[in-house]
Amino acid sequence: MTDTGLATVAVLGLGQVGTSIALALRDRGVRVLLADSDGQAVDSAVDRGAGERLDEDAPRADLLVIAVPPEALPGTLRNAQERNLASVYTDVAGVKAAPATRARQLGCDMTGFVPGHPIGEETFTDDAARPDLFRGAAWALCEDEGTRPDAVTLARRLVELCGAMPVLMDADTHDRLVALISHAPYLVATAMAGALVDAPVEALGLRPAGVGCVTGPAAVDPELWRQVLNQNARWVSCVLSEIAADLVDACAALQLASTGDDSYFGEVAELLRRGHAGRRRLVEAGHKSTG
Amino acid sequence: MTDTGLATVAVLGLGQVGTSIALALRDRGVRVLLADSDGQAVDSAVDRGAGERLDEDAPRADLLVIAVPPEALPGTLRNAQERNLASVYTDVAGVKAAPATRARQLGCDMTGFVPGHPIGEETFTDDAARPDLFRGAAWALCEDEGTRPDAVTLARRLVELCGAMPVLMDADTHDRLVALISHAPYLVATAMAGALVDAPVEALGLRPAGVGCVTGPAAVDPELWRQVLNQNARWVSCVLSEIAADLVDACAALQLASTGDDSYFGEVAELLRRGHAGRRRLVEAGHKSTG
Repeated sequence: MTDTGLATVAVLGLGQVGTSIALALRDRGVRVLLADSDGQAVDSAVDRGAGERLDEDAPRADLLVIAVPPEALPGTLRNAQERNLASVYTDVAGVKAAPATRARQLGCDMTGFVPGHPIGEETFTDDAARPDLFRGAAWALCEDEGTRPDAVTLARRLVELCGAMPVLMDADTHDRLVALISHAPYLVATAMAGALVDAPVEALGLRPAGVGCVTGPAAVDPELWRQVLNQNARWVSCVLSEIAADLVDACAALQLASTGDDSYFGEVAELLRRGHAGRRRLVEAGHKSTG
Repeated sequence: MTDTGLATVAVLGLGQVGTSIALALRDRGVRVLLADSDGQAVDSAVDRGAGERLDEDAPRADLLVIAVPPEALPGTLRNAQERNLASVYTDVAGVKAAPATRARQLGCDMTGFVPGHPIGEETFTDDAARPDLFRGAAWALCEDEGTRPDAVTLARRLVELCGAMPVLMDADTHDRLVALISHAPYLVATAMAGALVDAPVEALGLRPAGVGCVTGPAAVDPELWRQVLNQNARWVSCVLSEIAADLVDACAALQLASTGDDSYFGEVAELLRRGHAGRRRLVEAGHKSTG
């Protein structure tokens, strides 16, 4: 084991996030063991220099990163722990409380599992893996009172080796915050993008900036997002109910205005001012402008 | 008059769009006359090399560009025509039918007025003027049966000198298309951004990519957008009513799912797939990805 405490890391699941973690770790000299239910994904990652195949002879890893969709996470964790593949386990799913509850029900050892989630690394333009995907991004780590301190130390070290900033919070706090800043925006983007399915081709050809910006997150895999939203349904519905109500009200005011009655247009103006103020808060919080 | 037919252009209104047009024309050797109700805006534009002050001694322009908010447009056009400032007039407002109707009511000469709208030039990151703001962008020009052919020729030439692509369409078609690709996305972005006004600071500090992308258009001046939405209320309400209904339905399905009842989650999954397909259509139409 090197002085980082992370000499060997295993990565299960070689999508964009898993492969990018592997590439980042290889750049820092960590030995990386790769596995995926799709053998071709392993071949591709090995070819890219992301590490070596995790086989029967592989050493026990210091840390194992599970980078699979949230519904597959609890079973994958249990299986990896039964095979004793590593000392410490973490994951990267976008929702934290429900998968942890399920893992506990399955009898997983939760003392050596540190739920994790890299935030803000999404690009929406492609799904290519790259070693700097997480550079400067926040990365939530959700310890609870039962988590072993050495497990948290190794998970933090993983985050730092990927160039990201560890942010410790409990799983419920994580799920509440990302409902607002990630899951609800995704649903809003998706509803807007859905209106484009039947859009006249001459409209899309105008290549407007606004709709391109707003619909960006709809580029992400809908099945992955179905799982995330389903497992964070309570918090997402709380945020979404207010947004949906604002849009229903705005729509009613617009319908009235189209008949020449501006009685409720003051509320639309208020919504616009509020949105402008909310956007300014985001920018002032250091958000890197993507739009 | 040079071979372009545009030797002298006047620009009324020196915000980002008006000043950027002036800068682009200066780069192409056109004489540009500048005016704004705010004298300081004229000084700044002159200092930036965007042209010279439009004063009493100024020559009659070949074309006058009105770059003011839509509510101010009809009165500004009438006043400019009364002063006989140019042979041909155009504008850049984001909505076309209602201001034209009002201008007609005010007695404007509509034969020499070609309503225009540069589309897709927005950046949402700053409001700085620059000569290449319109490069490669679509720019709608709305002639009707009464428009003089020489007026359309000059307006097209303006668009080409700015590096943009003229797209001819009638005003109603314009308003219907931009309701879908610009005005509704703006309202959706604004409703999402409004939810951030009271967001916990630790949520914003995670600097998530999704919400930054989705809320981009909310950075634009809310008073300008109030006018645009009000004047395109009918088409925007048509688009928005479906989006709002989708979000209301998704919210109800999420609330049920949070109680363990997935009965309606299939509809959420369908919404996600539809959004993914809509986004793909936009990208396939050559949209430059900003998210």
